[in-house]
Amino acid sequence: MSIGEFFATNVTALDFEQINQDMLHWAKVGILDTVGVTLAGANEPCATILSSVLEGSTGPAVLFGTNQRCSALDAALVNGTASHALDFDDCNNTMGGHPSVPILPALFALADEIKVSGKEFITAYIAGFEVETKLAMMVNFYHYSKGWHPTTTLGVFGSAAACSKLLKLTQEQTKVALAIAASGASGLKANFGSMTKPMHIGRCAREGLLAAKLAKQGFTANKVDVFEHPQGFLEVYNGAGNYDIDKGLQAWGAPFDIVKPGIAIKQYPCCGSTHPAIDCAIDIYQTHQIQVDEIELVNIWIHERRLKHTNRPLPKSELDAKFSVQYVVARALTDGCVAIEHFEESAYSAPKILELMQKIQAKPYGDTQFSPDNHFGGQVRIQLKDGRVFEAKVQEPLGRTSDNPLPQDRLQAKFELCARRVLSQDAITHAYELITQFESIEDVRNLTELLKTN
Amino acid sequence: MSIGEFFATNVTALDFEQINQDMLHWAKVGILDTVGVTLAGANEPCATILSSVLEGSTGPAVLFGTNQRCSALDAALVNGTASHALDFDDCNNTMGGHPSVPILPALFALADEIKVSGKEFITAYIAGFEVETKLAMMVNFYHYSKGWHPTTTLGVFGSAAACSKLLKLTQEQTKVALAIAASGASGLKANFGSMTKPMHIGRCAREGLLAAKLAKQGFTANKVDVFEHPQGFLEVYNGAGNYDIDKGLQAWGAPFDIVKPGIAIKQYPCCGSTHPAIDCAIDIYQTHQIQVDEIELVNIWIHERRLKHTNRPLPKSELDAKFSVQYVVARALTDGCVAIEHFEESAYSAPKILELMQKIQAKPYGDTQFSPDNHFGGQVRIQLKDGRVFEAKVQEPLGRTSDNPLPQDRLQAKFELCARRVLSQDAITHAYELITQFESIEDVRNLTELLKTN
Repeated sequence: MSIGEFFATNVTALDFEQINQDMLHWAKVGILDTVGVTLAGANEPCATILSSVLEGSTGPAVLFGTNQRCSALDAALVNGTASHALDFDDCNNTMGGHPSVPILPALFALADEIKVSGKEFITAYIAGFEVETKLAMMVNFYHYSKGWHPTTTLGVFGSAAACSKLLKLTQEQTKVALAIAASGASGLKANFGSMTKPMHIGRCAREGLLAAKLAKQGFTANKVDVFEHPQGFLEVYNGAGNYDIDKGLQAWGAPFDIVKPGIAIKQYPCCGSTHPAIDCAIDIYQTHQIQVDEIELVNIWIHERRLKHTNRPLPKSELDAKFSVQYVVARALTDGCVAIEHFEESAYSAPKILELMQKIQAKPYGDTQFSPDNHFGGQVRIQLKDGRVFEAKVQEPLGRTSDNPLPQDRLQAKFELCARRVLSQDAITHAYELITQFESIEDVRNLTELLKTN
Repeated sequence: MSIGEFFATNVTALDFEQINQDMLHWAKVGILDTVGVTLAGANEPCATILSSVLEGSTGPAVLFGTNQRCSALDAALVNGTASHALDFDDCNNTMGGHPSVPILPALFALADEIKVSGKEFITAYIAGFEVETKLAMMVNFYHYSKGWHPTTTLGVFGSAAACSKLLKLTQEQTKVALAIAASGASGLKANFGSMTKPMHIGRCAREGLLAAKLAKQGFTANKVDVFEHPQGFLEVYNGAGNYDIDKGLQAWGAPFDIVKPGIAIKQYPCCGSTHPAIDCAIDIYQTHQIQVDEIELVNIWIHERRLKHTNRPLPKSELDAKFSVQYVVARALTDGCVAIEHFEESAYSAPKILELMQKIQAKPYGDTQFSPDNHFGGQVRIQLKDGRVFEAKVQEPLGRTSDNPLPQDRLQAKFELCARRVLSQDAITHAYELITQFESIEDVRNLTELLKTN
């Protein structure tokens, strides 16, 4: 059985009845997080510039966080770009990338065009998630290291599979959609650090949706062996000897990747290596209600490998601030959170923050603090002027794997922080409630209706 | 100087005054041929299906051969697909592909949006042509053999450069456009033989136009070294040791690729390996006015390498017919031409054709007929029932290189054969005249206005 046939068979066979509570839970976590970060990114320049050059697009699909609607294809492009604008969206260790953003913007755009239930939507999402991650098992991490941006070069298949499922394509049509998608896989790591990176996501969301729409109308593609062909996806993108087909085929649904390793949620909109220290700082802030002007000295310990790129005692730009463990800990101790606003304009050089950063020292931790093979740990110690000392320590940041999940209130807090950039509190509350019972939604448009502005 | 800077510098510096008569002539040949084949492909399923899924697109850009207009981006996508639908468009030996179709559909779409003169249009076309072919010199033919579809993976840079030129981007903006395009390069040979192949072209035309539009609005990308970066275009698409940057840089404009090796025009909508024999058969048909029922025997000789895939005495499908040297020679002797209609429906099994094909014998030629290193030759001998014998021989098919060009009347005849599938004779005549004096056009919309139906 070819890879295309294998995926198409499994995608068309997947039924909501097979989706257990764990899968359902994680699907809703992914949807909540992705909707939130897409709203947060709606007014970022990458999304607004892109939207401005798509003039003339009319249609039913909501551009999240705006008062505009356009065609489903264009909405997938723009919302997909917005969803990754802040690099704050969920991650998956199998892909070495972001599993939900290639899929969900395409599904929401399509769901604005045809009536779709929450159950159908979730089933399609999980099918697409499984296709892109099992394909990742075949090609990673060679694929990742070579320079491809796997979120998009693999995500395009996730989007195509999910949209095929939502459009109720036959097995043969789904094979065609995947084959069309294979000719639309692109995205270079050389463009990281620019607006083109988030646009990779919008592009692959759109390509996957386009592939499914075309396949439904009888378009043709190499549905026989587009993956295995000597001039097909595996040989051309990875090359002989750099992939393992069986590894992916054997792993289908055992377990579903959305459950294990699952979805990692970024709690803070900054470099992941700083997250353990932020967790500690917020813990101290909340537990001891300290005031910044009481602080005498702050010590931070994180793994040497992670300190290397985050030891930036005095950040000089917004991007620099995202990689400064000193800055983010100062923010956590001052505000009790690390939010998107903290990386905007000149927030990084606010006088009270500059003063606090001078009292912060960051060092690599030793074997006495953490097991030598743990590079996810973090420890923070705060000494107050009155002599009191508070300390906190984490083995890994919260949310990194499904074994160490973010509690629901943190997920909700992140969603609200993101959504409030564009939506009213009323809309946020309603949207949050709807997403927590996504499987009961009769028409997904009931949700997207809440995600636009007036 | 980086590749991106080199290209951007040369693209922005190119001026119509530098375009000599040869360049101008070939630009007009390329435009005439591309407009013709795009009209011919307008009603092919790949174009009509694609157009049907782009509903909701409104704008000023003409979909050639239809009564529809849409956004420039969507027109680039659909017209680009139509232009390659019949695989009848021009070729270039440097690219190992088709040089004009990635560029011209994007330029025409853009020219429907902003007022553009013929001179500006031609300058942009030549700039794009030079970028994609000089890049091809760096990466071919490894790139080609690996499985990439160079018409699109290289053509996307031609489209981006040409659109940047037409939009009057600065050098810095042009660098950005090329860098955005680098993340949009895709297209696998594994999809050859399906509708997805021509869609590769539409996609790259659109991606190039989108890149230029975004760059103009301040979008960002890696304009420093997107080609040379360790995870950039050259390393990821070709890999270390499989490209030669200097080869391309040194060749810029010396000569311009549009002049040498230039544009190869396909005179017949079938496999190029059959073209020498068709040239001979038409020569005999025209010179001797023979009637099919007078024919006793037909002998064809072509090179062994080319006979291998064209020796199909009794084709069984439309695609089969395109590769049958017996069929196309039978058509040439019966109709005096080989036209698009001859590969539609069951034209290949018309009774009079079946009867004639039984009298046709195809063989490889020997060293006494052609020089051993010539694999482009063809010879045909016809023996009539009354004993008369007619013979014709060509060293290479007409139009294969700019040294052996198609005469203007043949170019015109091809254009008319293509265009009459959708346009009135009046519109065809006017369009032809306008294209022959393209450099005098004040507003390119004067031409596109003629290319739509009522």
